[in-house]
Amino acid sequence: MSEADGVDALLFDVFGTLVDWRGSIARELSTLLPGIDGDAFARAWRGRYQPSMERVRSGARGYVRLDVLHRENLLETLDEFAVTGLDEERIDHLNRVWHRLSPWPDVVEGLARLKKKYILAPCSNANIALMTRLARHGGMSFDTVLGAEPTRSYKPMRETYLGSADLLDLPPERCMMVAAHNDDLAAARACGLKTAFFPRPGEYGGSDVRNREASSDWTFIARDLVDLADRTGC
Amino acid sequence: MSEADGVDALLFDVFGTLVDWRGSIARELSTLLPGIDGDAFARAWRGRYQPSMERVRSGARGYVRLDVLHRENLLETLDEFAVTGLDEERIDHLNRVWHRLSPWPDVVEGLARLKKKYILAPCSNANIALMTRLARHGGMSFDTVLGAEPTRSYKPMRETYLGSADLLDLPPERCMMVAAHNDDLAAARACGLKTAFFPRPGEYGGSDVRNREASSDWTFIARDLVDLADRTGC
Repeated sequence: MSEADGVDALLFDVFGTLVDWRGSIARELSTLLPGIDGDAFARAWRGRYQPSMERVRSGARGYVRLDVLHRENLLETLDEFAVTGLDEERIDHLNRVWHRLSPWPDVVEGLARLKKKYILAPCSNANIALMTRLARHGGMSFDTVLGAEPTRSYKPMRETYLGSADLLDLPPERCMMVAAHNDDLAAARACGLKTAFFPRPGEYGGSDVRNREASSDWTFIARDLVDLADRTGC
Repeated sequence: MSEADGVDALLFDVFGTLVDWRGSIARELSTLLPGIDGDAFARAWRGRYQPSMERVRSGARGYVRLDVLHRENLLETLDEFAVTGLDEERIDHLNRVWHRLSPWPDVVEGLARLKKKYILAPCSNANIALMTRLARHGGMSFDTVLGAEPTRSYKPMRETYLGSADLLDLPPERCMMVAAHNDDLAAARACGLKTAFFPRPGEYGGSDVRNREASSDWTFIARDLVDLADRTGC
């Protein structure tokens, strides 16, 4: 009897867990905004992510897509970095860098192996249009896109996890949340989902040590996605 | 300049267009309900499909998943065929025959070729759990599941087409509805989508001639999905 028995679907965190947002954005910015510190810009942009979603979580604002929040946050970040003179088209193109992030090296193989056994779906705060294009860009194959938009809620709200499981017509315990973030997994576990962790030390680089190690006895603790495929018998 | 230029996503009808519901159900019923005329049972069950959705379309009933409508319609069809004594588990298994339908022979290759160029999504009346399992069963690869459940509306309501395009952040004219049913395409065209038709004479067999031929000058009129891939340069 393996811990993987009784699991029908894997739900994935995406930013940081499957794709390298910081490195991908920094690389693109070196071309799109030459002279700007791309790494600092990426961190500053991403730093506005949680506060912008928090207004939706609190009910101060109705659900809006992450593409919209990203764009609002981009305008503020451009302002912070004193970047001026970009037309709407360039701003839109820049905003869609989130559609062009690179997967970590183990992800395409890991997903392909896991997909043979499990239903795979992102359970991310990305909206469907963003996630669909990001998956195609990186060669990541899922069965459908779940998470924030179909449930109109942002993680770590319970509705995002429970609503995603329900859209697959599965009880929470037949779903396993896969994330490189302990807080995401804690929220998923509190909803009854199984949990799988692996670290992504490159997500923030040396400056962040919060998710270097598992903070709890998650259902699986792996090295990366290929290792998770090994451990689940895929 | 090809008609396929400017199209980013293909939206698919599924029952009849991509999968053979009548033949698949009849084959399973020969084992699950021996002695029953499987072809007649499949037609009678499917015959309750439009009336059951019509109650939702009219607003007489809130949105419920097609799996739920299928099960209600199955109970009525079992009654019609005087089948008694099935326990809940067998009824559930029988109802999930809709998750196990076989694709027509050209579909897996056609989708694989089209997916290299276009975003692919079912825009079907199937709910996400049904569609996800049906796609996995048949080896049909999509980018995400759209259609009735994410838009909480049943085709041919405008919201199903327009909401599906919107979830991809595309204007309707950058989406092409693919269906073997002229009425589905007429509704999609009225919403501004491009349209592709091919006939599936085996869907109902000799008894139905409504969709043997294109009833209008759809954007593409093909022989089957592989032919559509040829015609769109995939």
